Amino acid sequence: MTYDEKMRQVDQYIDDHLSDFIADLTELCAFPTVAAQNQAIDETAEFTAKLLEKYGFSARVMPSSGNPMVYGELNGAADNTVLCYNHYDVQPAEPIELWDSPPFEATERDGKLYARGVVDDKGHIICRLAAIAALRAVYGNVPCSVKMLIEGEEEIGSMSMESFIEEHRDMLTGADGCLWEFGGVDFEDRPEIVLGMRGDVYVELRAKTVSHDAHSGLGGSIFPNAAWRLTWALSTLKGIDERILIPGWYDDVREPTEAEFDLLRHLPRSDESLKEAFGLKAFLKDVDGVEMLRQQLFEPTCTIAGLGSGYQGPGSKTVLPAEAMAKVDFRIVPDQEPDDLVAKLRNHLIDQGFDDIEVIQHGGSRAARVDPDSPFVQMVIQTAREVYGTDPVVAPTSGGSGPMDPFVRLLNVPISNVGIGYSSTLVHSPNENMRIADFVKGIKQTARVMARVGQGEAR
Amino acid sequence: MTYDEKMRQVDQYIDDHLSDFIADLTELCAFPTVAAQNQAIDETAEFTAKLLEKYGFSARVMPSSGNPMVYGELNGAADNTVLCYNHYDVQPAEPIELWDSPPFEATERDGKLYARGVVDDKGHIICRLAAIAALRAVYGNVPCSVKMLIEGEEEIGSMSMESFIEEHRDMLTGADGCLWEFGGVDFEDRPEIVLGMRGDVYVELRAKTVSHDAHSGLGGSIFPNAAWRLTWALSTLKGIDERILIPGWYDDVREPTEAEFDLLRHLPRSDESLKEAFGLKAFLKDVDGVEMLRQQLFEPTCTIAGLGSGYQGPGSKTVLPAEAMAKVDFRIVPDQEPDDLVAKLRNHLIDQGFDDIEVIQHGGSRAARVDPDSPFVQMVIQTAREVYGTDPVVAPTSGGSGPMDPFVRLLNVPISNVGIGYSSTLVHSPNENMRIADFVKGIKQTARVMARVGQGEAR
Repeated sequence: MTYDEKMRQVDQYIDDHLSDFIADLTELCAFPTVAAQNQAIDETAEFTAKLLEKYGFSARVMPSSGNPMVYGELNGAADNTVLCYNHYDVQPAEPIELWDSPPFEATERDGKLYARGVVDDKGHIICRLAAIAALRAVYGNVPCSVKMLIEGEEEIGSMSMESFIEEHRDMLTGADGCLWEFGGVDFEDRPEIVLGMRGDVYVELRAKTVSHDAHSGLGGSIFPNAAWRLTWALSTLKGIDERILIPGWYDDVREPTEAEFDLLRHLPRSDESLKEAFGLKAFLKDVDGVEMLRQQLFEPTCTIAGLGSGYQGPGSKTVLPAEAMAKVDFRIVPDQEPDDLVAKLRNHLIDQGFDDIEVIQHGGSRAARVDPDSPFVQMVIQTAREVYGTDPVVAPTSGGSGPMDPFVRLLNVPISNVGIGYSSTLVHSPNENMRIADFVKGIKQTARVMARVGQGEAR
Repeated sequence: MTYDEKMRQVDQYIDDHLSDFIADLTELCAFPTVAAQNQAIDETAEFTAKLLEKYGFSARVMPSSGNPMVYGELNGAADNTVLCYNHYDVQPAEPIELWDSPPFEATERDGKLYARGVVDDKGHIICRLAAIAALRAVYGNVPCSVKMLIEGEEEIGSMSMESFIEEHRDMLTGADGCLWEFGGVDFEDRPEIVLGMRGDVYVELRAKTVSHDAHSGLGGSIFPNAAWRLTWALSTLKGIDERILIPGWYDDVREPTEAEFDLLRHLPRSDESLKEAFGLKAFLKDVDGVEMLRQQLFEPTCTIAGLGSGYQGPGSKTVLPAEAMAKVDFRIVPDQEPDDLVAKLRNHLIDQGFDDIEVIQHGGSRAARVDPDSPFVQMVIQTAREVYGTDPVVAPTSGGSGPMDPFVRLLNVPISNVGIGYSSTLVHSPNENMRIADFVKGIKQTARVMARVGQGEAR
């Protein structure tokens, strides 16, 4: 049989066995694996390991510095190996009342399946397993080897991933390519491939000045005010021109390559739809087109994500707040280092006279970039054309962040995503859902990637 | 009979009829007159007018631009007149669960009476009425005339007081002195007399940049951030040296007089107890003693009373906030004008490029000062010595604010307070209470003030 003939059979198998895959996905989604609330972590890890074994893996739950990892290996017809990165934890389901069906009972309506995690990321776990089942049925033996690494704290910052990969580098190394955990199609149903992520440094700044709130008529001119200390400290972090003022912040920024710029130039223009969606007249600094994309994806950011202090109710309360806090989310780019940046932030605050501001770090990850010309990436692009009948959209990086850096830097593996989402998937929101047709396409593309890796096309 | 003999009889009457006064106070406190929640306003006003009639007043409920006023007149043996300013509204009782007895059922325990409003300010209303009853019993006719003006929105900013006084100036004018609604004894049981109040300008600043919160990875470098707009705008209002940066803010500040400074120098030193109570090592600008008092009572302030934007929960959420708000409480001094200051604030924000920041005004009042040498004030000080057996503490102003200015400026009446509170009265807090012994002393002092006004001693 030719590759095309085999793929027709693989596709047929996937179509014929779809209800089995959806049953497995439904069972997996029934676990309320909310990492932020430390719910159902161990049970989900155990169940996921058993699921891998059902699909032919040798699997186990492994300790990490945080939530346990699920790791499985499957020896196929070739040594050529696909490494799959996924996560079994999910976002909180709250606000529950906004769901049209219970978040942990996967429910089918109008060709869509609704549940927390149905896409992000339990659907992607089943997508990989379903592809393997189809390949085994058609090929007799899976045409490549597969390693699956499934973490349990992606939604709370993947803090254990780097140390786990460092510790288990021998186990994880040597794959021909890594299938990343997300993706799908855009507004116009074109598949999206993302070749990098920004990094992130997330801190909480806290001011505390007096032991308890005071009447503003008593303390207004003699007590230090936590809200003022915080406001003054924040105002030293970034200028009104959006330039981050912390000394040395931009020192290690690597300029984007011509190839990365070239990818930007070929991205679809989303200017007008973004402006409309957010009620904006103009983007910051009045940018548009490629320059907007450059600013959106290649610039370090400093975003105040939250502010809280004193009285926030209706009308007035004459209070001098004892405490104030800000959440600050810095997106970072290659080659900025989170630890170095946090140190620079702390030094800056001290230099500016704000040694009373406490800095609490909630997460840190480096940015990552994949070589768009690597054979693995080019092959994944080809499989997208096969399954979707159109050229994929290839972005040099996501504006978001994730644990991609240790895979690139420590395992030196090329990475591409194959995904099952669409523009109204609502990950992280009520009514998270996938279109079942997208799930099927994701499985079919995954099978093609594995078959081609088996044929040595990622080398 | 001499004055002293009459006062002995007055005191005896007060002691003998205490349970009647407490019964009236209990009935008045049963109304949950929470202005902020618009509760029981009309019922309380009607009941209060009836109470005034029971004590010999000709009384009525009068409309104002806000909650109704209760106004009563009593023609005594002399035309010499005491004007009493009080309010029938109270603070919210919340958090209810922290009360040891129901907030609207006055309850006696250990010589104290507990209820919302038992001191602030329903207790002071009954205090004035009880004094009148005792004077009538001893003198046959009340020795002076009395006007009582009782408002229903002191706890939400007395926004109708100035226009009401302007409209009814003829009715309210010509009193020999005005008894203010608050006061009592300090930590060492010395009666306190306060000869002024700071004014207040309370505004809410609001920023809105996009139609809804965005993912910080998507919008961090291309969407304007409401929390940043607000932070930058706030940071232009006051420098880290506590100097307000709005142009012209200090233009109209009247320097304190030598007499006012002299009162400061005689105030008890509260430095160490204040530092201990609020866990402070030092006051702002390291002041102490008289300089601390000067800074506390005579300086305009700019206090951020509240901040709110974006995510304030535990850990991290990667969000770019669409909205942000700050409550800002400016205390002002003679002769600053609230309307002028709000205009200066608005102009400043526009000049600094923050025309996107909305300014919502929640209140505004001028500062007020009473001449400490006026015969009325000197006479009230003398009655404090008579009743408490000690010199009162006389402060040139409170750090707090209230509607004293239209009384001083429009009615040109000298003002002093005679009060029933003590250091643990807990006004505005759960378990508001008065010591019944302080209530009795307040009634006795009020009777002496009225008797002496009748004798022409305030002229």
